[in-house]
Amino acid sequence: MSLATEPRAATDAGSDAAIATDMNALGRQARAVAQRLANATTAEKDSALAAIAAALRRNEEEILAANALDVSAARGSGAAASFVDRLTLTPARIEAMAKGIEEIAALPDPVGSVIAEWDRPNGLHIERVRTPLGVVGIIYESRPNVTADAGALCLKAGNAAILRGGSDSFRSSTAIHRCLVEGLAAAGLPAASIQTVPTRDRDAVGQMLAGLDGTIDVIVPRGGKSLVERVQKEARVPVFAHLEGVCHVYVDRAADLDMAKAIVVNAKMRRVGVCGAAETLLVDKAVAASHLKPLVDALQDAGCAIRGDATTCDLVPGVVPATEADWPREYLDGIIAVKVVDGLDAAIAHIARYGSHHTDAIVTGDHAAADRFLTEVDSAIVLHNASTQFADGGEFGMGAEIGIATGRMHARGPVGVEQLTSFKYRVRGAGQIRP
Amino acid sequence: MSLATEPRAATDAGSDAAIATDMNALGRQARAVAQRLANATTAEKDSALAAIAAALRRNEEEILAANALDVSAARGSGAAASFVDRLTLTPARIEAMAKGIEEIAALPDPVGSVIAEWDRPNGLHIERVRTPLGVVGIIYESRPNVTADAGALCLKAGNAAILRGGSDSFRSSTAIHRCLVEGLAAAGLPAASIQTVPTRDRDAVGQMLAGLDGTIDVIVPRGGKSLVERVQKEARVPVFAHLEGVCHVYVDRAADLDMAKAIVVNAKMRRVGVCGAAETLLVDKAVAASHLKPLVDALQDAGCAIRGDATTCDLVPGVVPATEADWPREYLDGIIAVKVVDGLDAAIAHIARYGSHHTDAIVTGDHAAADRFLTEVDSAIVLHNASTQFADGGEFGMGAEIGIATGRMHARGPVGVEQLTSFKYRVRGAGQIRP
Repeated sequence: MSLATEPRAATDAGSDAAIATDMNALGRQARAVAQRLANATTAEKDSALAAIAAALRRNEEEILAANALDVSAARGSGAAASFVDRLTLTPARIEAMAKGIEEIAALPDPVGSVIAEWDRPNGLHIERVRTPLGVVGIIYESRPNVTADAGALCLKAGNAAILRGGSDSFRSSTAIHRCLVEGLAAAGLPAASIQTVPTRDRDAVGQMLAGLDGTIDVIVPRGGKSLVERVQKEARVPVFAHLEGVCHVYVDRAADLDMAKAIVVNAKMRRVGVCGAAETLLVDKAVAASHLKPLVDALQDAGCAIRGDATTCDLVPGVVPATEADWPREYLDGIIAVKVVDGLDAAIAHIARYGSHHTDAIVTGDHAAADRFLTEVDSAIVLHNASTQFADGGEFGMGAEIGIATGRMHARGPVGVEQLTSFKYRVRGAGQIRP
Repeated sequence: MSLATEPRAATDAGSDAAIATDMNALGRQARAVAQRLANATTAEKDSALAAIAAALRRNEEEILAANALDVSAARGSGAAASFVDRLTLTPARIEAMAKGIEEIAALPDPVGSVIAEWDRPNGLHIERVRTPLGVVGIIYESRPNVTADAGALCLKAGNAAILRGGSDSFRSSTAIHRCLVEGLAAAGLPAASIQTVPTRDRDAVGQMLAGLDGTIDVIVPRGGKSLVERVQKEARVPVFAHLEGVCHVYVDRAADLDMAKAIVVNAKMRRVGVCGAAETLLVDKAVAASHLKPLVDALQDAGCAIRGDATTCDLVPGVVPATEADWPREYLDGIIAVKVVDGLDAAIAHIARYGSHHTDAIVTGDHAAADRFLTEVDSAIVLHNASTQFADGGEFGMGAEIGIATGRMHARGPVGVEQLTSFKYRVRGAGQIRP
């Protein structure tokens, strides 16, 4: 036994070490170009982005061919239809990717912009100025378009990027990455400005979470529960946390029923697979008799399945009873959990207990109730009389985003170009010394 | 051997578990009051701060008695004079602490303030609003006044605080903490709003760095090299990094010599023990012949010892030669390292290699050179023609601060009340749904 396992152990260790070495080299290369990128001009960055968009269009055929291999492998391994859909590229999706890059190019350059400035009584002039973060690591699922979006956003913000997409999209991401590198070269920027991890090995994720020997400044993880758990356990560098979106709509006693129906159906069913989709409907007990059935009917008419608490099951015959496991659940599907709560305080308490600090909405005509909800619900985005599906950088007017951060450090809510920057204080004097 | 060590191992494990339990209870208590604190009114928080200031004055005698025991124990164990000085309280220092608390009360309440707001074409009104961070853990050296300052700053920002001061100030901190609790009670705020760690055990620091079972949102570490190293190795929660201040003054070829002398002497010698004190003087080779000796003379006249590179030793007889270990060194003492560099690029390169991203200054009449220095030196604070000793929240007009953050995430530069907050997006609609 002992002899039989030893050689394998040795091989494993050797391969781990090899990955560590390769990954740390990625980190060193990123760190080596970070200063050059931090000082790249707006024109350099934007011309690289334009060249990347052109390269994506020019290499459409090659990207589609690589993607076809990924898709057929995923189908062969029995992947779910929704997974295959997110993985699949088409000419239209490649054109959308290229347009997305051009939109990022059109955004104002955040680097060097003055966020605040003031004068001190001693004559010092102080400016708070945006700077890049440095080296950003992004870990994401098998959505090939993220390789283009995330690389472009990091570049615009003056950061070096290390991208690690889902292994099922490895060939597609590699083909897209070649376009990124072509665009960088065309603008005279170093190829290492945007790197992808050249292996499918999941150990690479662990290496990134450990910080690649101090070369990564921040990790942006985008993925499901297992990645989130891994990040919480293993991350040794700052993380812009992206938890799941267990989003709630609370229909208050002072809600207009028609408005509530429209918002609830949109929040749940417009797109069920996005993180801003509602997963739980809370209805105020005071209006349960009048509002609950019409709300449930509207959801069911839109094709949504219901998991109801005891009161809901009493008031609406035929509803499947919810279990405790339904309340913290992110279905990302045409299913909603429904609960009758005893007013605003109970709604806020439910969200505090089961929510994920992502996006939550109240429907009410009572402005005092709305103010309390907006203040007391501790989520990145809180809405009054609007759909949770507005949780999106584009809808906020911030341009493209990598995701919706649910942590409270640095970035919260949509993570776009500005959220990928830091700042410094620039102080100008005329010989001032401190008394 | 095996039998002999087993009982000890068991005892150790038992005592570790006991600390873990106690510490986690602190975390749970902090978490339990965080929501109450987040929604505390400005009046509640400010009246607690006023009551804390009054309690510090009222309990002066008790605080001085506790402090006398700490001081005599520190003296007995042979602590350095500068250490004992920072540890020692006097009636004047207690009055300064009380005044400091009153100044924090007078600051605007950051919580709920609108940082930005805009309207979307669909009529949605979006506000970015400051919120508390949640539970803040602060680890600091044996400076009893930090217990009052840090607790008050966290309270003003609506955060629950867990404070862990140096073990040599344990009795003093405990006495000061009693005043904090008295003030909280007077304003009807929960005692657990500001907790101190009730043990001198250094394992408590490790527990805090591990996040107290998910209850701590952010750690602010303030201390020397050993704490910084421990934080880098052990922290599992976000940290507002406070590295040491290896601050530089670069005297450029276009510097006015008199201005340079005034700034260099002030930056080094005004107070040698603060993190914004200059530790290295870089002099442009182009003016070394004319400027170096007068600068060194001025420093020596102010009582500063010099460690010079080879060129400095050639130009100024009698200077002690610097070794490689001097360049990254934070002396916090009347010593400065001096190096002649080949112009602006070499100065920027030296700072990139040896600096700590804290505070660096250029003295020059050349505005293009100044702009390049301010842009390319990657430090929290960069100054042109002003002393590095301005690295201070008060001097920036930001009020009291916990320290100068040298990381690039969330807080950078002085960490005052605003830096101890997060934000959320508050969105108001009239029934909008997303197309």
